[in-house]
Amino acid sequence: MKKIINEPKNLLNDLIEGFVYTHHDLVDCLDDAKVIHRKYKNEGKVALVSGGGSGHEPSHAGFVGKGMLAAAVPGEVFTSPTPDRIFEAIKVADQGAGVLLIVKNYSGDIMNFDMAKDLAEMEGITVDQVIVSDDISIEDTGTVGNRGVAGTVLVHKILGAAAENGKSLAELKELGDTLVQNIATIGVSLAPATVPEVGKPGFTLEEDELEFGVGIHGEAGYRREKIQPSYEIAKELVTQLKTHFNWKNGERFGVFVNGLGATPIMEQYIFMNDVRKLLAEDEIDVVYTKVGSYMTAIDMAGVSLTLIKIEEDEWTTLLKEPVDTPTIF
Amino acid sequence: MKKIINEPKNLLNDLIEGFVYTHHDLVDCLDDAKVIHRKYKNEGKVALVSGGGSGHEPSHAGFVGKGMLAAAVPGEVFTSPTPDRIFEAIKVADQGAGVLLIVKNYSGDIMNFDMAKDLAEMEGITVDQVIVSDDISIEDTGTVGNRGVAGTVLVHKILGAAAENGKSLAELKELGDTLVQNIATIGVSLAPATVPEVGKPGFTLEEDELEFGVGIHGEAGYRREKIQPSYEIAKELVTQLKTHFNWKNGERFGVFVNGLGATPIMEQYIFMNDVRKLLAEDEIDVVYTKVGSYMTAIDMAGVSLTLIKIEEDEWTTLLKEPVDTPTIF
Repeated sequence: MKKIINEPKNLLNDLIEGFVYTHHDLVDCLDDAKVIHRKYKNEGKVALVSGGGSGHEPSHAGFVGKGMLAAAVPGEVFTSPTPDRIFEAIKVADQGAGVLLIVKNYSGDIMNFDMAKDLAEMEGITVDQVIVSDDISIEDTGTVGNRGVAGTVLVHKILGAAAENGKSLAELKELGDTLVQNIATIGVSLAPATVPEVGKPGFTLEEDELEFGVGIHGEAGYRREKIQPSYEIAKELVTQLKTHFNWKNGERFGVFVNGLGATPIMEQYIFMNDVRKLLAEDEIDVVYTKVGSYMTAIDMAGVSLTLIKIEEDEWTTLLKEPVDTPTIF
Repeated sequence: MKKIINEPKNLLNDLIEGFVYTHHDLVDCLDDAKVIHRKYKNEGKVALVSGGGSGHEPSHAGFVGKGMLAAAVPGEVFTSPTPDRIFEAIKVADQGAGVLLIVKNYSGDIMNFDMAKDLAEMEGITVDQVIVSDDISIEDTGTVGNRGVAGTVLVHKILGAAAENGKSLAELKELGDTLVQNIATIGVSLAPATVPEVGKPGFTLEEDELEFGVGIHGEAGYRREKIQPSYEIAKELVTQLKTHFNWKNGERFGVFVNGLGATPIMEQYIFMNDVRKLLAEDEIDVVYTKVGSYMTAIDMAGVSLTLIKIEEDEWTTLLKEPVDTPTIF
C-alpha cells in the first residue's frame, strides 16, 4: 500500500488535525467529539449538519462554512460516526432555529443520525433530516434503497444557500426532500480504493477493465467491460440517467462530474466534454456545470456523473451562490 | 493505460472544450489560438498571462479570472505552447497598461514566451516577464537552472491580486522577481505519470519505493527510498527546505501542500499535519496555509511542498484576497 499516511489507526486524528490547521480561519474543532464546525454564526437561522465515514474528502468537512454546512462529523474511514458525536455536532451547530441533518443513505449513518436526532430532541433542539439516495446504479436490488453519493454535495449547496437566505426548518426539509427526488448519480471505477487499515484494494480490476456502477465504498457495480474511450463511458452513464429521468428534449438540468480520488481533473474535464455532446443530442438545457473531486472514495480511480433536474429557477440561483468554505463549491 | 480520454491526439482540444464549457460564465476561448481568457476586464490595469504544457491542470487555465490571470495558453501535454499562440494571448489580455508573462523555467517555455514578447513589443504592447524557478531539488546540477513548479501558483495569486489593486507593470515585475527569490518547492513521487500519447509511465518505481525530488514532468529526482510514514517524508522535504532558506526560529512563512494528480486530498491534509509539527519545532510563524492539487503532473502520485518566506505583510494579504476563477485558490 503506497499512501502518504502514518499509522492507519491514527488516520482520522491526523486528517482532522491537518484539515483544521489548514483552514483555521474558517473552522474550529470540538476536540473530544472531533466535530468540525464553522466560526461563522448565522444566528436565528437553521443550521445544516452532515457527516459519515471518512475517505470521501473534501466531503463533508470541506463544506463547513458560510453558505453550506454549520458542522460535519467525520467517522473513521468508511465507518459511520457514533451518535454521541453527531449529537455534539447538533448542539454546536444550533443557532436557535433548528438543525437539519443531511444523511447519505447507508444503514449505519441512518441509524446513528437518527439516534443523535432523538438525543437532541430530548434536549429541546428541533431537528429534522433529509436522506440522500442519488446513486441509481443499484435500483431494484432489494437493499435498503439507493446509496447516497456525490449528489449529496448539491444538496449541501442548495440547502445551505437557502438556510443562509433564512428559510425555516420545515421549508428546508420540504425543499431537501424535493431535491432528492430530482438528483441522480451513476459512477464508473477504473481502479479500486484501498482502505488504509485493510492495506489492500477492496476489489480487483484487470489492467484493461472498468466497472460501471461501483459505489463510493467500493460496493459492486452492475457490469464490467474493457477500458474504452471517454465518449463511450459517458454514453453508458448518460443513457442510464436518461432512462432514470425519462427526460424530454429541452428539459433543464445541472451537470456535476465528480472525480473519485485518483483521477486527475484533466480527465474529468474531458469526460464533461463528452457528457456535453451527449446531452446536446437531446437538446438538454444545461444551466449549471461543476467539475472536480468533491465526493471521493479514498484513492479510487474513476468518476461519477450527477444530474439534477431543475424544477425551480431558484435552485440554479442557489447552486451559484458564493460560499466561504474550505473547499469552494 | 487506463485513462478517461479519447484519442490522445485530440486531448488538448477535448480538454479545452470541456473546461470552457464548464466555466463559460467566467472564461472564453480564442478558438484558433486556443487561448483561454477571462470575461472580466480590468481596464487600465496590468494583465497577467501564463501557460505551458498541459498535464498540470488546473494550472494554468483554472486561474484565469478576476484576481489572477487574464489569459492562459495551454500547450500539448508537457509541450510548450507556440509563440504565435502566446502572442494572441498577450493581445487579448492587454488592457492598455501592459502585460506581465509568468513563465515556468523550462527552456522551451522561456524561448517561446520570449519570442511572443518580441512579437507583441513590435505591435506596441509593453510586455515584461517573471521566470519562476522554485524547485530546489535540482540545484547545482548545471542545467538551465531550477525548474518552475507549484510555487508558480503563489506567484499567480500574489501578482494577480497586486495587479487588481492597480500596481504598474514595473512594480509587478519587481515584486515578482522578489517573490521568486523567496519561494522554494520540493516534491516526492510515489508513482509515475503516463503521458497519453506515449501510453506507458515515464519512469518506474517499485511497489515499495518512492523518489524524492521528481519534477512535474517526471524528471528524475535525487534519491529513491522505501515507502515510509508521512512524517518521515515530510521530514525529508522540510529538511531540504530548511537548508535552502537557512531559516531562523520565528521567521514567517506561507505553506502550500500540492497534490501531483493521483494523490487524494486526504493524504495531502495528513502530510500538511506532519509539516505543521516539523515547522513548529523551529517555531516557524506560519501565516498562510493551502492544500490541494493545483499544479499536477498528469496522474503522478505524490505531493510537493512549497514554502514562501514572507518578507512583507502585504504578501499575506494578497495571498488571501478573494478571486473569481474556475479554480479558487
